[in-house]
Amino acid sequence: MVSSGAAAVIIGNEVLTAKVVDANGPHLIQRLREVGVSLRSLEIVPDEVDAIVDAVARARLRARYVFTSGGIGPTHDDVTVRAVALAMGRQVVRLPEMVELIRQKSWERGLEHVLPETLRLADAPEGAVLLPMPSGGFPVLTVEDVFLLPGVPQLFRSQLEVVLSRLSGSPVYLRVLYLGVGESAVAGVLDRVALDMPHVSIGSYPMFDPALDYQVKVTVESGERDSVEEALARLQAGLPTGSVLRTG
Amino acid sequence: MVSSGAAAVIIGNEVLTAKVVDANGPHLIQRLREVGVSLRSLEIVPDEVDAIVDAVARARLRARYVFTSGGIGPTHDDVTVRAVALAMGRQVVRLPEMVELIRQKSWERGLEHVLPETLRLADAPEGAVLLPMPSGGFPVLTVEDVFLLPGVPQLFRSQLEVVLSRLSGSPVYLRVLYLGVGESAVAGVLDRVALDMPHVSIGSYPMFDPALDYQVKVTVESGERDSVEEALARLQAGLPTGSVLRTG
Repeated sequence: MVSSGAAAVIIGNEVLTAKVVDANGPHLIQRLREVGVSLRSLEIVPDEVDAIVDAVARARLRARYVFTSGGIGPTHDDVTVRAVALAMGRQVVRLPEMVELIRQKSWERGLEHVLPETLRLADAPEGAVLLPMPSGGFPVLTVEDVFLLPGVPQLFRSQLEVVLSRLSGSPVYLRVLYLGVGESAVAGVLDRVALDMPHVSIGSYPMFDPALDYQVKVTVESGERDSVEEALARLQAGLPTGSVLRTG
Repeated sequence: MVSSGAAAVIIGNEVLTAKVVDANGPHLIQRLREVGVSLRSLEIVPDEVDAIVDAVARARLRARYVFTSGGIGPTHDDVTVRAVALAMGRQVVRLPEMVELIRQKSWERGLEHVLPETLRLADAPEGAVLLPMPSGGFPVLTVEDVFLLPGVPQLFRSQLEVVLSRLSGSPVYLRVLYLGVGESAVAGVLDRVALDMPHVSIGSYPMFDPALDYQVKVTVESGERDSVEEALARLQAGLPTGSVLRTG
């Protein structure tokens, strides 16, 4: 069964070779959280067809929505369209409406003719759909819930918003316990509640920062508010006396 | 054939749910680059045994060295040791030297007895080796070139340095061209040189920042300095007159 969540594939030799620090992954993580779409995985792969095909195919098995970042420009290292098409068993076709848009934008910029390389921007997996941008920029290229977003952070962000406005997420309820003891002292209680309530996600994060007044942050979350409150109450009842400094 | 490079698996529900921004991935990318070990992929997966097994098994097919981050503490959500063992077809065993170390550290901290949950820290895939830390902290857990690093950034960084001091990388030569024209105008030339010189990696990065004086950054890199210089010369010869603003 494919979940309703999302998976991300960041295409970027430049990230893996430390030429740039990826900004799109963290931004995507944050925005998906805010709109209530769960993220199953995020993978950074090189600009190589085989690596992208593999990552996109796996992402589609894990999640309903797949976001790719990068590799959709006109140069030799832009192979995302071809790889996504392969991963989905589709041909690459040239979209007439994109050709028209490219010609129009070139004309507006005073260029006499369009280079063949520029027209590569009009290539897409067969059956692709273009989501128009309110700003009038290049539309979002999407095919069956795979969204091929550009790697340039400004463009990635504006196209992502167009995609997110069409997705339906569900809010996640989160409560937090701040503990004044170490993880080992509470692991047993956390285990029991996590086992009893598998529909609630319980996270335990040790902190080693002497500037903090707590040693462990425990997070409790679920789509159901009542379940979160019940798990929180059970944790509080089971934890050593005085170990909970405060809740959040 | 397994390459000599590295692959990374970041285990972190807390990252995928935007509770914390992953600092270990970017740090690992930067440090591997600095020591000349190429990174093949970086994947962020949830704290789930199946997802980690799958990611670690794939990482081992891609790269000689595999780094995991997170999931090696004493709580219910710490499943990395079990998952790595499964991915490698090994049993989980309790390491007597780690049990001894845990008892000793508990004793030093004035604790009367060691909780059973704390002893989980001594579990490891069969055949694991411990790399001692110069600081005297907990040693690095490693098994056949898989390094199980902790998710807490301070600990991740200090353990990573112990690992890196044992790896042998090779330096990468990098040259850069800054272009005053758009990507489409140079895509043809980049294509030709990239096709002719497959052992040189050529990257093309469009910039849309009006504060910059260039429109495209082209990177040329390889383990062989001469090849990089030859590719650079061929690019400069083929690019439109005046399009190269400067080299770096």
